[in-house]
Amino acid sequence: MKLLSGAIAAVDHGGSLGRASALFPHAPQPFVDLSTGINPHSYPLFDLPATALSRLPEAGQLRELAEIAASAYGAPSAMHVAAAPGTQILLPRVASLVRPGKALVLGPTYAEHARAAAIAGHAIAEVSDFDALAEADLAVLVNPNNPDGRVIEKARLLDLAARLRAKGGLLVVDEAFMDVGPIEQSLAGDLAAGGIVVLRSFGKFFGLAGVRLGFALADPLTAERLDAQLGPWAVAGPALEYGIRALSDAKWQADMRQRLAGDAVRLDALLGRFDVPAAGGTSLFRYLSFAEASTLFSALGERGVLVRHFAERPQVLRVGLPGNEAEWQRLEGALAGWAAQREDAPRESGR
Amino acid sequence: MKLLSGAIAAVDHGGSLGRASALFPHAPQPFVDLSTGINPHSYPLFDLPATALSRLPEAGQLRELAEIAASAYGAPSAMHVAAAPGTQILLPRVASLVRPGKALVLGPTYAEHARAAAIAGHAIAEVSDFDALAEADLAVLVNPNNPDGRVIEKARLLDLAARLRAKGGLLVVDEAFMDVGPIEQSLAGDLAAGGIVVLRSFGKFFGLAGVRLGFALADPLTAERLDAQLGPWAVAGPALEYGIRALSDAKWQADMRQRLAGDAVRLDALLGRFDVPAAGGTSLFRYLSFAEASTLFSALGERGVLVRHFAERPQVLRVGLPGNEAEWQRLEGALAGWAAQREDAPRESGR
Repeated sequence: MKLLSGAIAAVDHGGSLGRASALFPHAPQPFVDLSTGINPHSYPLFDLPATALSRLPEAGQLRELAEIAASAYGAPSAMHVAAAPGTQILLPRVASLVRPGKALVLGPTYAEHARAAAIAGHAIAEVSDFDALAEADLAVLVNPNNPDGRVIEKARLLDLAARLRAKGGLLVVDEAFMDVGPIEQSLAGDLAAGGIVVLRSFGKFFGLAGVRLGFALADPLTAERLDAQLGPWAVAGPALEYGIRALSDAKWQADMRQRLAGDAVRLDALLGRFDVPAAGGTSLFRYLSFAEASTLFSALGERGVLVRHFAERPQVLRVGLPGNEAEWQRLEGALAGWAAQREDAPRESGR
Repeated sequence: MKLLSGAIAAVDHGGSLGRASALFPHAPQPFVDLSTGINPHSYPLFDLPATALSRLPEAGQLRELAEIAASAYGAPSAMHVAAAPGTQILLPRVASLVRPGKALVLGPTYAEHARAAAIAGHAIAEVSDFDALAEADLAVLVNPNNPDGRVIEKARLLDLAARLRAKGGLLVVDEAFMDVGPIEQSLAGDLAAGGIVVLRSFGKFFGLAGVRLGFALADPLTAERLDAQLGPWAVAGPALEYGIRALSDAKWQADMRQRLAGDAVRLDALLGRFDVPAAGGTSLFRYLSFAEASTLFSALGERGVLVRHFAERPQVLRVGLPGNEAEWQRLEGALAGWAAQREDAPRESGR
């Protein structure tokens, strides 16, 4: 039973196999889950030291993580980094950095931003025009955007940030998918003047969404305010271990960027063979916008291939990357099944 | 560098080996860490499924955890449970459930409660008289108390809760150490009327402080409000796996309660042999209050045995349980060394 309703009620998301099974009870299992933008090639798993589970996380290890994250993301220093158990839990805290006022979210985008702003007491509205964000006390956008991959150029972001800062406002840029670029548009290096919070997600690019690790990058006072809200030991032992190792592994990151870019090209080509046009996205997911999207969603789901649909926009889909050849083949088979269905449909309706 | 100061600045805690090394640079390593109240006999570690790290935590698993936690803690149902990545991160959120007003904390106790209430905007004061809590908008106490083990009876707590509730106030009872009793004083079963939040810690009793898992037990609307603040996926995959398995393992819990009670008796006896009186505590830690506490702290620390001291109360110490025979022997040796020092001291000063 849900007691809360309206803007702060829970939001529907991809990535739940429980929900997939309820939606497609006759689908062949296991599902090929392409409903998220999480990298299917996770950073190599390793044995955790027992103390990562048994002992309280060490402050020294958290400092080390902040230093490595600053370096990996291009923030000026560890003082500009607040580490959290996932970006998600940061959202209401970031939205609370400015007094309740007018929050504008550049949409359509990840739904949790509007919910977080509502929790923080803001009056929220979604705008589709970037320039309209200047009217906000709290302006939020995702760059590159989820799900369509739209990129806003850094110069425009800095201009917006300056205008907001001048009136005590805040610009929040969620760079959850910036690991796969375009890195030259990241604001991670432009925090000194204040009035900007950049969010970075660990779990998506490193394929480790279960460990729960995310970062807010901001001027040092803002970063420390967020740290104070989270308290000591906010980041779990396993997240510290994986974060330190994976964020300092520049070679794995470079190789992975290349691999994902190749996979994204392959996915576009496969979709194209079935006349499904990719309208955008990033190397971690592709964005489809076409009339038959909802029938494709159902046809794939019934064949055990789960992609992300959006209740209020039935003409769009987001498709993540298959993780291995078997998954590529199941996607191809499901697409072929849908295409055969599609060819039959006009004939049947013409009878 | 720390930019924040005053009531919301970071608090000094036990459990940091980095700090211990800085304090006692010549101590034999590794330290015997008795500076926390964390069970040294952790729940048996097991191999995590890869998906616990790679995939987003499943909503169904979170519901399962809430059901098991409700049962283990004696809450009326899973709807009365909000699961979080540690109790710590819940504190400012719980303190924010009531409008900023007067927060009274029954002290001396765990310092994070006052800090969290300050973050939530309350005017905070520590009171030593339980009856004074009735004047609060937000009343906070730890039961049994950390560090002295003081227990407040349930009847008195319910009476206080009713008085606070009548004026829109809130009683927060931190039952972080209630796993080792006295369970008949727990408020986990008395949430229906509202106005009460009970906090339970997973990491202390199960010896898994690194996984970060804690719970708020409250009326369903309050529990859902806290859930909304935390957002989806607040509890990491490893915490879900360990929480579900350990909280449903009633036999391990019963055996462990007995083992810890025995260890606490053994610790009191050992301390007693050196004329160190235990003045209270729980089965997870013992509380010492005597004139020579600060010299004992230093003498043990120099010998690589770390106990918890309190900067503002030099006459008290908190001592956790040794985890194995080697640690018992190092504690005994360190106590013997201190006792020899103590005997020499008057002679030397008498020369």
